[in-house]
Amino acid sequence: MLHIASLEKLVHELNRLPGIGPKTAQRLAYYILRSKDAYPEKLSEALLRVKAEVHSCPECYSYTDRDICKFCEDPHRQTESICVVEEPSDISRVEASGAFHGKYHVLHGVISPLDGISAKHLKIQELINRVDASLENGQPISEVILALDADLEGDTTALYLAKIFQSKNVRISRIAHGIPMGSDIDFIDDRTMGRALENRVLL
Amino acid sequence: MLHIASLEKLVHELNRLPGIGPKTAQRLAYYILRSKDAYPEKLSEALLRVKAEVHSCPECYSYTDRDICKFCEDPHRQTESICVVEEPSDISRVEASGAFHGKYHVLHGVISPLDGISAKHLKIQELINRVDASLENGQPISEVILALDADLEGDTTALYLAKIFQSKNVRISRIAHGIPMGSDIDFIDDRTMGRALENRVLL
Repeated sequence: MLHIASLEKLVHELNRLPGIGPKTAQRLAYYILRSKDAYPEKLSEALLRVKAEVHSCPECYSYTDRDICKFCEDPHRQTESICVVEEPSDISRVEASGAFHGKYHVLHGVISPLDGISAKHLKIQELINRVDASLENGQPISEVILALDADLEGDTTALYLAKIFQSKNVRISRIAHGIPMGSDIDFIDDRTMGRALENRVLL
Repeated sequence: MLHIASLEKLVHELNRLPGIGPKTAQRLAYYILRSKDAYPEKLSEALLRVKAEVHSCPECYSYTDRDICKFCEDPHRQTESICVVEEPSDISRVEASGAFHGKYHVLHGVISPLDGISAKHLKIQELINRVDASLENGQPISEVILALDADLEGDTTALYLAKIFQSKNVRISRIAHGIPMGSDIDFIDDRTMGRALENRVLL
């Protein structure tokens, strides 16, 4: 390093981003220094604008820059099913499939005892309240669909939520695990194959 | 994407950084959104500060936040040899070796006809002026050491500079190519081995 205080500070801040190591941070900082057309100003402004404008939707806890997010606001979306995801970015994946037309709910994480994350750190109580309120106001949510990752934390969270909603007589389901479309059976791992057999669909 | 204008703008700006593709830019943007302790403000400030404080040294064209850079300013550094590098970051590599005690000169690139970069786009005329001025003011630069990359563009630039300085009777040298220290000869590529044999040193 050239021991320029402001350059070192920028490298330090870039280094905090996930997946950006010290070497990459240095490379990015030099790129920013070399850049023309006011790039540092533009990036700086974009950062401040995101921070100022984007906040949680009070209904589903996704991100939005309006009072409530476009999915919660949309009167054409079905209200009887709700799709539960870990992060706001997961909504785009579900939407891209075109197979879901209900509302969303973002947990902002999954139950992970190893990382010290329990149900109370997530938007789980908010989900329960939402379902309870729907049962009372005559527009009942009849199915909670879990679109969680297919890992240990996803499984734990699914089990936890299943218990809660089964006791309320609300249908709870989880998106299917199985062979990805277009995949060669030769390359499928044992656990996926096991799950695909277990969850086979009658034709 | 969630179609939030300010979020998309941030992803767009991050995507312009080298090595940051659209997927990574999106991941970084979500990380920034989730971050606590005013991270967006800190990064934004670091960007603006670098832009405001860091500029080219008028002597050697490295980066500095003072009038002239610390190497040009340092009266203890030898003035008779000058080490020519491609980028300011290369100076740290040469310094770390502890084997050079002279001054530096940054070209800000190398001659690369394929990318449309010729001698006039680089700080080559400035290097010639510096050497000429030193010959006139009685503190002559007696050797120009090229620490350029060991690739085609580095070779082209080295040849170009060699021609200029040979005609001025200034010694010009290039850092040695050969087997890296600590390397196993088994794993050395043909061209490096060829160069190492060619440039063998008498013991």
